[in-house]
Amino acid sequence: MIARVPAAEAAALVRAVTPDRELDRDAIAERFARARWSAIAEPGDADAGRLIAATGVTQSVEHLAIGTAATTLDEVAGGSFAEALDRWRPRVRQVDTALHLRQAARFGARLVIPGDPEWPVGLHDLGVHAPPALWVRGDASLLGRLERSIAIVGARAATGYGEHVTIEAASGLVDRGFAIISGAAFGVDGAAHRAALASGGATIAFLAGGVDRFYPSAHETLLTRIVERGAVVSEVPLGTAPTKWRFLQRNRLIAAAASATVVVEAGWRSGSLNTAGHAAQLGRPLGAVPGPVTSSASAGCHRLIREYDAVCVTTAQEMAELVDPSGAPTLFTGDPSPERIRVLDALTRSGRFVPQIAAICGMSIDAVRAELGMLELDGLAVAGPTGWRRVSS
Amino acid sequence: MIARVPAAEAAALVRAVTPDRELDRDAIAERFARARWSAIAEPGDADAGRLIAATGVTQSVEHLAIGTAATTLDEVAGGSFAEALDRWRPRVRQVDTALHLRQAARFGARLVIPGDPEWPVGLHDLGVHAPPALWVRGDASLLGRLERSIAIVGARAATGYGEHVTIEAASGLVDRGFAIISGAAFGVDGAAHRAALASGGATIAFLAGGVDRFYPSAHETLLTRIVERGAVVSEVPLGTAPTKWRFLQRNRLIAAAASATVVVEAGWRSGSLNTAGHAAQLGRPLGAVPGPVTSSASAGCHRLIREYDAVCVTTAQEMAELVDPSGAPTLFTGDPSPERIRVLDALTRSGRFVPQIAAICGMSIDAVRAELGMLELDGLAVAGPTGWRRVSS
Repeated sequence: MIARVPAAEAAALVRAVTPDRELDRDAIAERFARARWSAIAEPGDADAGRLIAATGVTQSVEHLAIGTAATTLDEVAGGSFAEALDRWRPRVRQVDTALHLRQAARFGARLVIPGDPEWPVGLHDLGVHAPPALWVRGDASLLGRLERSIAIVGARAATGYGEHVTIEAASGLVDRGFAIISGAAFGVDGAAHRAALASGGATIAFLAGGVDRFYPSAHETLLTRIVERGAVVSEVPLGTAPTKWRFLQRNRLIAAAASATVVVEAGWRSGSLNTAGHAAQLGRPLGAVPGPVTSSASAGCHRLIREYDAVCVTTAQEMAELVDPSGAPTLFTGDPSPERIRVLDALTRSGRFVPQIAAICGMSIDAVRAELGMLELDGLAVAGPTGWRRVSS
Repeated sequence: MIARVPAAEAAALVRAVTPDRELDRDAIAERFARARWSAIAEPGDADAGRLIAATGVTQSVEHLAIGTAATTLDEVAGGSFAEALDRWRPRVRQVDTALHLRQAARFGARLVIPGDPEWPVGLHDLGVHAPPALWVRGDASLLGRLERSIAIVGARAATGYGEHVTIEAASGLVDRGFAIISGAAFGVDGAAHRAALASGGATIAFLAGGVDRFYPSAHETLLTRIVERGAVVSEVPLGTAPTKWRFLQRNRLIAAAASATVVVEAGWRSGSLNTAGHAAQLGRPLGAVPGPVTSSASAGCHRLIREYDAVCVTTAQEMAELVDPSGAPTLFTGDPSPERIRVLDALTRSGRFVPQIAAICGMSIDAVRAELGMLELDGLAVAGPTGWRRVSS
């Protein structure tokens, strides 16, 4: 059986994708089991999460290997696993975890699991939907430092406007110490990664397929640079094809890993609305960049603001405030008082005396005198032989 | 004393600005008194509103005419009117109400007061800040039918984008039976009135100065057309100059008269934010049209959405929904189920058999069969000699 790998070989394979770390026998068994789960269950499989939580990950894989009956599993783990077993069984026979680990080692990828310092803290909020493991190329340590990170996502068919805003946003956020998370797609995603790299910032790409399969292939060079200076991450093993389902589930990882999500441009039914939906469901701050109402590329953003309470964000500073609120919004400050406006209205450059000003303003003489005193202090009015005159400000 | 006009003359003057209505002696006295207040108090004077409410409008004017002492007034009306009397006294001596009424008659203007069927119902919400009367040129009856009306306001320095959106919005709202209210300024205001006229809709312009003084003067032709086919309104008598204070107070009338206010374009400190502030204070629905974040002409709109909870509105339909909510927002509907997405992912144009599809999807054979059945019904999958094939949709 493919799942049965000699202990020494399993240890060598796991160690190759877990450099610089002491691993005892249990740790190796756990990592191997998590690598297996990442291929047996489709991303986001809550039944897998429940079984792992109930029996421990090593034990759960053993149950699959020995073909524990559904009724027994229901008893052991508390739940109803018949349907899930039907789902997993074909994969249990096919999945070659040793091959996946070998592939990962060949590409210099690392296996990161919950409890590792590299595990993105935000993924804990996914509960039973959390991935059993992540496959990471590049600087995996970045994943452990995502407290200040923003996901910038959006339309593949971004306009010039969308790309411009993305670049300004990503570089402005890098300047404020944020890591930029995205999905390496064409359009907004790619522009966000590029701008982050150009500004010398940290950037992380989450892929829907294996980290050996750069998708889209036209982003081969970009993804190679992200591996060199950031991190490329997936919850499915190397060699796995991206599918629509995996894209949707990849979006949940982006939303969960980042401290906030910003949608720059999105059509009315754009996939980035799915990422936004995950962010909202997880209680993560969600921002959307407005654009011309005449541009269909902004329709999804307006929809997020209008129907889903996304915050309207127009600058990198406002995006940063999604994570670090700057306190109460500023009120319309600095507006002069009604009395001041009325006295100023009545002043001319040639001069008027107080009783005349009072009649014009419909204010008492005393109130006019008080306002004139304040206006004089502010350099806006001056008294002279022709009465009070307005001073240009 | 100017306030003292012979009864017969006063009656003739009031009747000239109140055509087609029976008026008894009290009604004439009330109208005359309200015309006086509209010149004595500056717009929005709450003390005037309080005095009128406490003593009745005819009596309140009599108090001013005979010079009732502040202490007596405080006793009679309950309040503290010393400062207000200082404010009003210079005007009491100067205001020539007979002249204002004569001017109004000459311009075919009408005096409208609370209780008239032409009184805009929304103005009641202004309480003691409500105007004592309105001076109206054009079809005053429009003012009595503002239950379906939207104020479209915005930057004088509107961009081509702003004017385009304004025209689309105003004509779309007219098509939905809304009257368009605005301030006749350059830019958004003017475009809103023009589009309403062009669509054969009702439009009302509120001015900061008298309705004989068309401001801005370059809008002489536009305002003449509004008089012919809509209404031009002011709370100050004919001959009164527009001042900054009166513009700000005019904005409160626009916000109160309309059932909702929409800001199309507005700079960061635009005057239309003042109108928006009044609308919000009055609990009126407030919408703002987003635009490019790179355009300073949209900065005020984004600020309204971001900081003041204005609704992001992008079409006439969405503006209409400010007044007629269309029910709960539509959810991301029509998204296929996770299982369906996974089965579709696994289908090819050449064909695959169920066990293979089940292994690819990580789903049970039964679940795959069920989904394939649904997909077949929807015309998305078809069975044949090579197994199940995907059909292009």
